[in-house]
Amino acid sequence: MRIDHVGIAVPNLAQAIDRWKPLLGGPDSPPEELPSQRVRVAFVRAGESHIELLEPTAPDSPVGRFLASRGEGIHHLAFRVPSVDDALAGVVRRGDRVVDPTGRPGARGRRVGFAHPSAFGGVLVEFVEVP
Amino acid sequence: MRIDHVGIAVPNLAQAIDRWKPLLGGPDSPPEELPSQRVRVAFVRAGESHIELLEPTAPDSPVGRFLASRGEGIHHLAFRVPSVDDALAGVVRRGDRVVDPTGRPGARGRRVGFAHPSAFGGVLVEFVEVP
Repeated sequence: MRIDHVGIAVPNLAQAIDRWKPLLGGPDSPPEELPSQRVRVAFVRAGESHIELLEPTAPDSPVGRFLASRGEGIHHLAFRVPSVDDALAGVVRRGDRVVDPTGRPGARGRRVGFAHPSAFGGVLVEFVEVP
Repeated sequence: MRIDHVGIAVPNLAQAIDRWKPLLGGPDSPPEELPSQRVRVAFVRAGESHIELLEPTAPDSPVGRFLASRGEGIHHLAFRVPSVDDALAGVVRRGDRVVDPTGRPGARGRRVGFAHPSAFGGVLVEFVEVP
């Protein structure tokens, strides 16, 4: 199972893009706003995976609260799966919790879903459907 | 530049291996102890990358202090580079700080080196030399 991306919470997307550019180059495509999650995101390629830079558009959004409590840094780890619904159901079947009971629209037009951090020892795991 | 691995700090390596097994399978090889870093580590494959599970062998080790202050979770992000020394020198040349001025022996017999978290907006970045 591949790493789809590593999500990094940042207070300022433009500054974060500049910071990572010398190492990884610029984003694949222009930043995208996800109103449902109240974030603006940019994806920077790293081999078969990406780094997702996430800037909150509201302080009381999930990423805004993460920045306030933990500061800038790695926010989640996303894996590529053939079916988000099956991946989430597998977590529930093992007796663990999920944030999203089923897949929902995410960045780059993909279906995504989050397990609860308690399911993976404090790591917030996202599943990204790439059929 | 590929993601070599995502390092995850865990209080108990055996339990962490069990937790990730349903998603990713078991480790590539038996756990390895790194006395210089006071950790025991196990690498679990995820596509071209790995998840590195890190259990501290002492509470006042770097990973032990991370667990005490931040709890279980993602600890660092490692990229594969042709030369660790060149990668670290690049960080210094841009005016940023490094933890290791030059490469040193790391897990799996590889040369590794860490940038300072301030160099990448709070993300602890490791370089792993794969010539």
